[in-house]
Amino acid sequence: MARIDGRQKDELRPIKITKDFIQYPEGSVLIEMGNTKVICNASVEERVPLFKKDSGEGWVTAEYAMLPRATLTRSNRDINKLKKNNRSVEIQRLIGRALRSVVDFKVLGERSITLDCDVIQADGGTRTAAITGAYVSLSLACQSLLKNGVIKKFPLNGYVAAVSVGIVNKVPLLDLCYEEDSHAAVDMNIVMTDKGEFIEVQGTGEEAPFTKKQLEQLLELGEIGTKALFQVQKNILGD
Amino acid sequence: MARIDGRQKDELRPIKITKDFIQYPEGSVLIEMGNTKVICNASVEERVPLFKKDSGEGWVTAEYAMLPRATLTRSNRDINKLKKNNRSVEIQRLIGRALRSVVDFKVLGERSITLDCDVIQADGGTRTAAITGAYVSLSLACQSLLKNGVIKKFPLNGYVAAVSVGIVNKVPLLDLCYEEDSHAAVDMNIVMTDKGEFIEVQGTGEEAPFTKKQLEQLLELGEIGTKALFQVQKNILGD
Amino acid sequence: MARIDGRQKDELRPIKITKDFIQYPEGSVLIEMGNTKVICNASVEERVPLFKKDSGEGWVTAEYAMLPRATLTRSNRDINKLKKNNRSVEIQRLIGRALRSVVDFKVLGERSITLDCDVIQADGGTRTAAITGAYVSLSLACQSLLKNGVIKKFPLNGYVAAVSVGIVNKVPLLDLCYEEDSHAAVDMNIVMTDKGEFIEVQGTGEEAPFTKKQLEQLLELGEIGTKALFQVQKNILGD
Amino acid sequence: MARIDGRQKDELRPIKITKDFIQYPEGSVLIEMGNTKVICNASVEERVPLFKKDSGEGWVTAEYAMLPRATLTRSNRDINKLKKNNRSVEIQRLIGRALRSVVDFKVLGERSITLDCDVIQADGGTRTAAITGAYVSLSLACQSLLKNGVIKKFPLNGYVAAVSVGIVNKVPLLDLCYEEDSHAAVDMNIVMTDKGEFIEVQGTGEEAPFTKKQLEQLLELGEIGTKALFQVQKNILGD
Amino acid sequence: MARIDGRQKDELRPIKITKDFIQYPEGSVLIEMGNTKVICNASVEERVPLFKKDSGEGWVTAEYAMLPRATLTRSNRDINKLKKNNRSVEIQRLIGRALRSVVDFKVLGERSITLDCDVIQADGGTRTAAITGAYVSLSLACQSLLKNGVIKKFPLNGYVAAVSVGIVNKVPLLDLCYEEDSHAAVDMNIVMTDKGEFIEVQGTGEEAPFTKKQLEQLLELGEIGTKALFQVQKNILGD
Amino acid sequence: MARIDGRQKDELRPIKITKDFIQYPEGSVLIEMGNTKVICNASVEERVPLFKKDSGEGWVTAEYAMLPRATLTRSNRDINKLKKNNRSVEIQRLIGRALRSVVDFKVLGERSITLDCDVIQADGGTRTAAITGAYVSLSLACQSLLKNGVIKKFPLNGYVAAVSVGIVNKVPLLDLCYEEDSHAAVDMNIVMTDKGEFIEVQGTGEEAPFTKKQLEQLLELGEIGTKALFQVQKNILGD
Repeated sequence: MARIDGRQKDELRPIKITKDFIQYPEGSVLIEMGNTKVICNASVEERVPLFKKDSGEGWVTAEYAMLPRATLTRSNRDINKLKKNNRSVEIQRLIGRALRSVVDFKVLGERSITLDCDVIQADGGTRTAAITGAYVSLSLACQSLLKNGVIKKFPLNGYVAAVSVGIVNKVPLLDLCYEEDSHAAVDMNIVMTDKGEFIEVQGTGEEAPFTKKQLEQLLELGEIGTKALFQVQKNILGD
Repeated sequence: MARIDGRQKDELRPIKITKDFIQYPEGSVLIEMGNTKVICNASVEERVPLFKKDSGEGWVTAEYAMLPRATLTRSNRDINKLKKNNRSVEIQRLIGRALRSVVDFKVLGERSITLDCDVIQADGGTRTAAITGAYVSLSLACQSLLKNGVIKKFPLNGYVAAVSVGIVNKVPLLDLCYEEDSHAAVDMNIVMTDKGEFIEVQGTGEEAPFTKKQLEQLLELGEIGTKALFQVQKNILGD
Repeated sequence: MARIDGRQKDELRPIKITKDFIQYPEGSVLIEMGNTKVICNASVEERVPLFKKDSGEGWVTAEYAMLPRATLTRSNRDINKLKKNNRSVEIQRLIGRALRSVVDFKVLGERSITLDCDVIQADGGTRTAAITGAYVSLSLACQSLLKNGVIKKFPLNGYVAAVSVGIVNKVPLLDLCYEEDSHAAVDMNIVMTDKGEFIEVQGTGEEAPFTKKQLEQLLELGEIGTKALFQVQKNILGD
Repeated sequence: MARIDGRQKDELRPIKITKDFIQYPEGSVLIEMGNTKVICNASVEERVPLFKKDSGEGWVTAEYAMLPRATLTRSNRDINKLKKNNRSVEIQRLIGRALRSVVDFKVLGERSITLDCDVIQADGGTRTAAITGAYVSLSLACQSLLKNGVIKKFPLNGYVAAVSVGIVNKVPLLDLCYEEDSHAAVDMNIVMTDKGEFIEVQGTGEEAPFTKKQLEQLLELGEIGTKALFQVQKNILGD
Repeated sequence: MARIDGRQKDELRPIKITKDFIQYPEGSVLIEMGNTKVICNASVEERVPLFKKDSGEGWVTAEYAMLPRATLTRSNRDINKLKKNNRSVEIQRLIGRALRSVVDFKVLGERSITLDCDVIQADGGTRTAAITGAYVSLSLACQSLLKNGVIKKFPLNGYVAAVSVGIVNKVPLLDLCYEEDSHAAVDMNIVMTDKGEFIEVQGTGEEAPFTKKQLEQLLELGEIGTKALFQVQKNILGD
Repeated sequence: MARIDGRQKDELRPIKITKDFIQYPEGSVLIEMGNTKVICNASVEERVPLFKKDSGEGWVTAEYAMLPRATLTRSNRDINKLKKNNRSVEIQRLIGRALRSVVDFKVLGERSITLDCDVIQADGGTRTAAITGAYVSLSLACQSLLKNGVIKKFPLNGYVAAVSVGIVNKVPLLDLCYEEDSHAAVDMNIVMTDKGEFIEVQGTGEEAPFTKKQLEQLLELGEIGTKALFQVQKNILGD
């Protein structure tokens, strides 16, 4: 069975990360995974949330949103409904957790970095593209803090990348596009470190439950996908 | 290393499900897992969301909230902040997805069932307790629809239960209480069917990434835990 | 004319107050008046509203809400409408006023006690049950403050209880259940002290105006009802 | 003991009702009780709330608000806080209930009348002034409906007026101004019909409980006050 | 072609400004331009917005709103929609900008003056009436600050008045009433100083674009109109 | 006096319009004016607002927003404040008015086109760039409707472009960048048709009033600027 865009089962879509996409943020990239495009901006601010006050430690958080016409049909803006979209809430919590797992908050010091992930075009896998792109922006912002002498050590202790995998027509596939995603029986997002460890595994069998064997196949695809993504990130970040 | 409450690593807290806890809902239970107490009410309504209109199919959804003093310190009510708590949004989406995975919406017919999960006392594992309890309420509501001739067949094709597992001080543990949860390096929620398949696996290593080996140990604990929960559910539901 | 549940005109429904219903609050009860069930939690916080800042005086306030399925048909949650229910606003203001009337704020000191009254099952008289139950929680919280040496004197100078009365089919009745309440021409809530004085009298003749004679009959029923309630409160509080 | 403005204990402040104050509403008055000034506009609309749909019956409701500088110090507008003021919610519910008690909804037919009571200057007794003024606007709107042949019969079966009474320095007083109100131990609002019956009695002893004897004295003052108000209303309405 | 109310093309409607309309504000007027009536209250507060903190400078801002029945048909209140009306937002920003242009914030000192412009009856030109009236209230408030020794110098360096002009049936007209405004092809609001300079020019050709020649004719009408308004303002302010 | 970026007084910044920037909208461009970048998406929907229902006529409206880090410092998202930014409200009303002035709604038919203008990088003149870009998107969407036979005639009867002008250090300048804008004494936005007529003129002298002579100089700069913009638009649109 061929994939809709002719890819192999374990093949990522073309990926492109454009550095310094927006000029003002401390870190900024446009990440493109196939037709999915997300602007990831990192903003450093010299203040922390209440629960970190006077702790000597920093904080990293994320916000995720879509432009109204990032999708096939137009969505109403959150502000017109006075309610942050529930799916966006879930996603931005995931992005924040994923990135925080590699941050040494003592080294970062009492400041916060906000990752704004704004999807301008959506074709599946926006949350994992956001994590992969946001990691690069976060890293660029940290490089800049280090270069400017604001911090003494680089505060990230590993790379973070994410990819979606899923089971479509009983076949485990890597990096689902929207069309595939909408027919998937199982849908999983995998966030990993470049050491091959897991940061987050979120698998959902809303259409049909899945077995431990299937879970293992999906995890393997996730490893293959993130390995390729780490290579792209490292090229951009000059390591 | 002994657990804070003397349990074995793979031992659940005492579990109790009280049927017909509230008199008005079509299904209602109070579920207690140790000191965690959640009221799960199922409400049947003869209407469906817009996207199911005229489809002949029904819908199942969930809402999750905590009383202000379900926790050690008092939280402000959502309505006073004009914003549903982000964590609650994430959890109620999980509960809804988990339950929908075993519902045959054609059999249910064009009506909806809302599972209100209100935590009155929280000591860890509220989301998994909510899923386990909500399944019972959902099942009671379906039994009642069947008995009253509203539907012709029982619309649920399997049991659903959930349990939290995690790694505390490097040791994988089953069913974390709040004290354990707040020291866990890895935190995972596992939702399963009584056929031993996975509906949802959500593992987070915010404190530290985890290996595939650890993931497997956690999944095994999840299986042990849900197996015990299915027994309790079946006793209540009279199967 | 017999009452729907066989009671005498001046007879309360069975009343039950369960102490320490929830484990975390400084005071907590479940009050049941017939089928009406309200959780009343008292939370002590070491801060006061702006208008009491640096006054040396404390504050007591209340919040009232219903679970979505406390009633025959499900109600949408306030947060989904971004608006506190108007009836709830009116009721929580009443509860707060009623309790404050017996508090010596100088003795309480610059701290606040919030009474969360959450109706889990509603069958008429929820606001008066909330006042009667909240008084017990408030008193438990004050006992605890006194026992722990936080305050030097007990800050409550009297008991507070409340009951609903009304005129149904021209007959004045004590403690209306929902069925009676929905047919009442006149509806009155009476809050009293154990010295037989009035704290609040709220009578409404939306269906039909009432005479001074009828008002007097209703006040007498209120005295009978609260007298019985004070007895239950005193048994619980160990006086 | 003399009153702050030299009035007798049972004397109203100067009262003035200006008819047709605003040109567009079906009924409009400016009511002045001393320095308290409230614009009361009645708007007829050919639709009813959901719960009256296809009932053949109409509805009457009220909204109450204050201009930001109706008071000594400026208040922030509700819209800037995204929350209707709690006190206003309580008051507009009272105004609506009070007026509905004399409306024959069958005669009014399936249309609604909204009474907008906007306080432009507040010096105590704004809610009772609003009721007294809103009754006149409601009556004017009904006269206009009758005159235009929209309805066949006058739908109001009595006059409604309201006045505040209270106990200040142990003395029962009629029609408290703001200065008196802020020192009152007991505060009561009395709504009556011109037949001398009660529509609503709301007495609060937040500062100190009150006896049945005091309650009776206050009710008598209320009767004196409303009797005078009915005269003013009748002069305006041409009866 | 005669105007609907018989005026000349360059003739203002009757204008009336009532000083001290509300008793509490530091400055208060009711301005009437024909049937348009706006209450303009100036409130002095001893605090400034964040961006002026510790600058030694003050601030002037405006809020604009309409009573629900200021218009032919009733509008729902902003608070019921949880959203400030977009048109009101645009207008209050205009009023604030217009007034700030003549304020010396150093002389005013670190305090703020809020101009509340509440339209109680609307018949076209409410925003320009609000500016003209609000200037008087602002000036009264400044006079009072000066008289009370709070400030040492009068902080306003010029008069501000505004008027609407427009092109109706190809004819440029001064001071449009609602009926004219709703048929205007071009609609322009002109804010001027008494030195004949422009503070704000806002012209919109939503129905049809306009030429430079037409723009000049409208500006001339604006000069004629504001000249008359400055005379009324000066009479009131006693210059 | 040289301009900050070396431009002539009457010289636009480099302008670039990228067609089909986002793939889903019926019309989409990225417009860049110097460092200001705005995504303008046109969405056609087969429904109209209530006030156009059954009129046979269509509607055109606009929404304007900025990404949080389009600016030097990060702004909080509207949804987190539950309030659309006031400046954005003003701007999106302007964009909508400007575009509607050239639309024949009968020809468009009963459908609506929404122009989403999202600023991803802001360096002054975002509202005028949005109008100029949105016109192109609107035109593209109309071309597509015509090509697909949905409409029979092209519904736009002219081109629309906008530019900002202002007085900085007493010198009238065309197309202000942020740095210039923040020092401008007078700030004006000019919207024109390609026939040289005005659609909207908005001039504000918040810092200092301006004379009729200055107004004329600014209008001339506006004509020069829009003339150049119409050329760019026509190149893109293939006329």
